[in-house]
Amino acid sequence: MAELLKGSVKTRNMYAEFLERTDGLKRSGIIPGMRIFIASDNAGSAIYASMIAKNCSRAGIGCEISRYGPGTTANDLVESINKANSDDSVHGIIVMLPLWKGIDEKKILASVSPEKDIDGVSPLNAGKLVLGDACFHPSTAEACVELLYAYGYDPAGKHVVILGRSNIVGKPLANILVQKGVDATVTVCHSRTQNLKEICRSADILIAAIGSPSFITQDYTHPEQIVIDVGMNEISDGQGNMVLVGDVDFENVKDKVKAITPVPGGVSPLTHISLIKNIFKAIELKNI
Amino acid sequence: MAELLKGSVKTRNMYAEFLERTDGLKRSGIIPGMRIFIASDNAGSAIYASMIAKNCSRAGIGCEISRYGPGTTANDLVESINKANSDDSVHGIIVMLPLWKGIDEKKILASVSPEKDIDGVSPLNAGKLVLGDACFHPSTAEACVELLYAYGYDPAGKHVVILGRSNIVGKPLANILVQKGVDATVTVCHSRTQNLKEICRSADILIAAIGSPSFITQDYTHPEQIVIDVGMNEISDGQGNMVLVGDVDFENVKDKVKAITPVPGGVSPLTHISLIKNIFKAIELKNI
Repeated sequence: MAELLKGSVKTRNMYAEFLERTDGLKRSGIIPGMRIFIASDNAGSAIYASMIAKNCSRAGIGCEISRYGPGTTANDLVESINKANSDDSVHGIIVMLPLWKGIDEKKILASVSPEKDIDGVSPLNAGKLVLGDACFHPSTAEACVELLYAYGYDPAGKHVVILGRSNIVGKPLANILVQKGVDATVTVCHSRTQNLKEICRSADILIAAIGSPSFITQDYTHPEQIVIDVGMNEISDGQGNMVLVGDVDFENVKDKVKAITPVPGGVSPLTHISLIKNIFKAIELKNI
Repeated sequence: MAELLKGSVKTRNMYAEFLERTDGLKRSGIIPGMRIFIASDNAGSAIYASMIAKNCSRAGIGCEISRYGPGTTANDLVESINKANSDDSVHGIIVMLPLWKGIDEKKILASVSPEKDIDGVSPLNAGKLVLGDACFHPSTAEACVELLYAYGYDPAGKHVVILGRSNIVGKPLANILVQKGVDATVTVCHSRTQNLKEICRSADILIAAIGSPSFITQDYTHPEQIVIDVGMNEISDGQGNMVLVGDVDFENVKDKVKAITPVPGGVSPLTHISLIKNIFKAIELKNI
């Protein structure tokens, strides 16, 4: 059985530290606050937002979830985001995707103030990330890197193969890993990649972020590989229940690799940590 | 002997088309104009700027080169760039690197208006490139991709290995190649990469952009490989003359790969084409 890379274990003691930090801020008159925008009836968004809110609360951070109904226009949403942009009690803003059909996602994400864009979704943040400037790293991408470090797997010089080229995970993850100081050799694969199995098998570290349930089997891995599974797919277990599975076929792979993340409990706890750290960063940058 | 990928051949007829386009613009009262800023005594910058100016002239585009002496401060330069930003006769701005020691490069590049940033150096442009939004692609990176297409080597699905992670070539090139529609599988290697030769040999297309004279030998290649050499290194020929060589040891590799760029005459002619196309794009975007 491979070593289990459990973000849930590594993050256990972090909230006590966060609480201390928040208390310090509160003593100096700053009450850290996050605002989450949901403009859809997507069940996953609602669950994720409430998990973020719960973890904010564990860290002593206020978190307000604003919901917008099906009649919402892009302009309505931009107006609300602009209010949050100029509201001093809001230090970080997250917009849950997807949005109601017809709302221009790019327009909405670009309207988040770069100073409060704690999930690093705006074009300016994405650009700063590429150029190696100070910025907010998208939380899930950052979580993958932090999980590697937490378990002593420094990616420097290693060949990391990323499956998936989404704007929120694959691309920012590649751009973080290749920076000076992180120093990974990075390959990005996707649906059009030829020889996918071969390229995946050449990886020291394989990171799956494609949203395809149990796609990665032992054909894609080798015994010395570190496997990070970013996937969170809800599927039916065939008996009327929904179960959560990753992009990796855990049972098929778990005895054939060196280390692997469980789903859930692998990457996602560190995603929340990244968001909270970015709130503190936003407050710091504001007060410089 | 490998097939020679000569940008110089593929670009020969393009200037006549550009002239026609410029004439059309002039008839509607628009005189396309570029401004190049040089704030250093770097010989390469001066040569490159005068080549750009010459090629602009071939395309009927005005090009003014502004030089700044050793006493120039970052604020002086930002002020001058801001004037060009708000000058309607300037459609595209290029800042030659390096700058005089002590001038903050990032500050200067970020001061170029995104609407005139025809070499795509600003953080906002870099971010839009990552996210797949309309933007200016950095000219050398774009030139590599255009050269592949010009010779019928569609990178879709192919494994492209890029050597070098600079902000002006390696990183933007990776971000262009991985986009939907281009669809390459992309690996970025650099000085910290382990197993570099092996990874390079696994490439369908190898692109060298590291600035190390004749670094790539046949140990890094295979007979079916397409090799693109971005390097432009001036070295002594041992007899008191300076000669221009690429990052690839051309003589060593030329009979051992499928296709290869000469240096000069490979990528660089298409770099100029990219800049000129971006001037037209800037004019178009301004007039939408």
